[in-house]
Amino acid sequence: MIRIALDAMGSDKAPQVEVEGAAQALKELPAEFHLQLVGRTADIDAALSRVGEVDRSRIEIVDAPDVVGMGDKPLAAIRGKPRSSIAVGLGLQQKDKSDAFISAGNTGAVMAASTLLLRLHPGVQRAAIGALFPSAGQPVLVVDGGANIDCDARELVGFAHLGSVYARDVLGRPNPTVGLLNIGEEDEKGNAVVKEAHQLLKQTSGINYIGNIEGRDIPVGEARGQRLDVVTCDGFVGNVVLKFYESAGRVFVSLIKREAPDVLQRPEMANVLKVLDYATYGGAPLLGVQGVVIICHGASPAQAIKNAIRVAVQAVRSHLSDDIAAEFAHDGKIPA
Amino acid sequence: MIRIALDAMGSDKAPQVEVEGAAQALKELPAEFHLQLVGRTADIDAALSRVGEVDRSRIEIVDAPDVVGMGDKPLAAIRGKPRSSIAVGLGLQQKDKSDAFISAGNTGAVMAASTLLLRLHPGVQRAAIGALFPSAGQPVLVVDGGANIDCDARELVGFAHLGSVYARDVLGRPNPTVGLLNIGEEDEKGNAVVKEAHQLLKQTSGINYIGNIEGRDIPVGEARGQRLDVVTCDGFVGNVVLKFYESAGRVFVSLIKREAPDVLQRPEMANVLKVLDYATYGGAPLLGVQGVVIICHGASPAQAIKNAIRVAVQAVRSHLSDDIAAEFAHDGKIPA
Repeated sequence: MIRIALDAMGSDKAPQVEVEGAAQALKELPAEFHLQLVGRTADIDAALSRVGEVDRSRIEIVDAPDVVGMGDKPLAAIRGKPRSSIAVGLGLQQKDKSDAFISAGNTGAVMAASTLLLRLHPGVQRAAIGALFPSAGQPVLVVDGGANIDCDARELVGFAHLGSVYARDVLGRPNPTVGLLNIGEEDEKGNAVVKEAHQLLKQTSGINYIGNIEGRDIPVGEARGQRLDVVTCDGFVGNVVLKFYESAGRVFVSLIKREAPDVLQRPEMANVLKVLDYATYGGAPLLGVQGVVIICHGASPAQAIKNAIRVAVQAVRSHLSDDIAAEFAHDGKIPA
Repeated sequence: MIRIALDAMGSDKAPQVEVEGAAQALKELPAEFHLQLVGRTADIDAALSRVGEVDRSRIEIVDAPDVVGMGDKPLAAIRGKPRSSIAVGLGLQQKDKSDAFISAGNTGAVMAASTLLLRLHPGVQRAAIGALFPSAGQPVLVVDGGANIDCDARELVGFAHLGSVYARDVLGRPNPTVGLLNIGEEDEKGNAVVKEAHQLLKQTSGINYIGNIEGRDIPVGEARGQRLDVVTCDGFVGNVVLKFYESAGRVFVSLIKREAPDVLQRPEMANVLKVLDYATYGGAPLLGVQGVVIICHGASPAQAIKNAIRVAVQAVRSHLSDDIAAEFAHDGKIPA
């Protein structure tokens, strides 16, 4: 049995979209997968009664009476609300009663609680968010998507390792390419941290490093003539670009809706619009903690929750956490 | 008479697109505007013979036998090729024989030569590129678009001043709002430099500072309930986002072309596609130098060159350079 814990109180429309996403996921997943809905039991029960057919034998409700708000300070919320859905949900995994945790709640609180309760794998300096960017080709995984604001060069190398393992295990890319986000391809480009990271990455074994890449390469999904799988960057630029892209996609769709609404209904446009559709991807992994944690947008629809559950399932099945431990156990991989 | 110098050797398709852009611009501009085409006389003559009707009495060819390549090191190119179109074109402005300079050539070389030959206005710490981002509303000016990789907090305040003057003079926005690009709106968000810049900007008079903004606000063209006119950020993140946006737009259009090509022909789509069309904007000003310098994409079509000429004209007419000098002459404006 594989158990996925889902924070039922996280999203803007909690717990309804979480419960709907859970019900959809259970229909698609093999019987060995069970879901733990973490939150206020009465609210979850009410939401369950509103969704259609659902296999209750594979759902466990885990009561957590407190809720961390989007405006709560992360550390204070974790310490002050030990019975929140975030703390209780992650506590299940800490006590080996669950295999993964998914939340669309306060991202900072989920990150802080994950690091506190699950701890980092030995050798991992900082946990990082892996954000999948749609592209004209395959999606590109950008690490870090916003967990770490100031990063040093060795941390950027660590993100390259984390992203590579995730790309192999969850995205099914056997020898993933890694690019360093920079403002030009040449060796001498970038600030001091990025220049140092470039030199370190060139010497790092076990990573398929293809060199400096630029912002323009991400939407194309290719860099230096190869498919681009993983991009490493600090969480400041990663977060700015991530929010920028999400917003640009929404703006574009809303402009088409205003000017030529029928265009959006055209079946051929589905292949275009999926490039802008974050619900397809569902959730972003918090990489580096001992366990599986998937962070969703607060505005996630049920489909995004369902897809986040599928991502968590793939991470558990592929032994992502063990593989990250193994990657970082090879001390020689990050040049000292 | 107002004289605009145009580097005829800069773009990927030089000098043809430059000459075509010049011919188009002259048709639209009043008779007082003259163009100085700087480059290899024979090449420019040949290109002129290939364009249609053009008023040769308003075109002066200024011979510059050397060409700075896209791969040349900026400083070495300026020092080693004093007869390049970049050095000669900027030299005209230095000697008061021209009012503006436009180039689609090596951006680093144009920036280095501009700073060396024209010098910065007193009080300006670093020249910065003002990049116009299309948005659902009015375009948003992002400063710095890539001239300065590592910036301190006071430099970010300087970019806010530079962008504000440009927005008033060239974009016609009387009291432009300024946002600081960050990863959240709250005071405590961001890295050390950004946090310090936020505090400085709050105390800075003469700037309509609206606070931290996020990547998502730029495509919308609004932040904190107001129109967003100017965004200040370091040139690393500015350049990454700029290249990302240009590329995302191209990818989107090419996907529509592949999947549903007739959609691009629909007249209502023009209002959507203009959000992705950089040719509309033409060129990015290098702000802070004593003079007017407009930098174009190497891949600029003739229309972008024409629009860059119009931008230069507006900068000259509005006395942009004098207004920047005045802005920075008020010592009290940047908190010490």
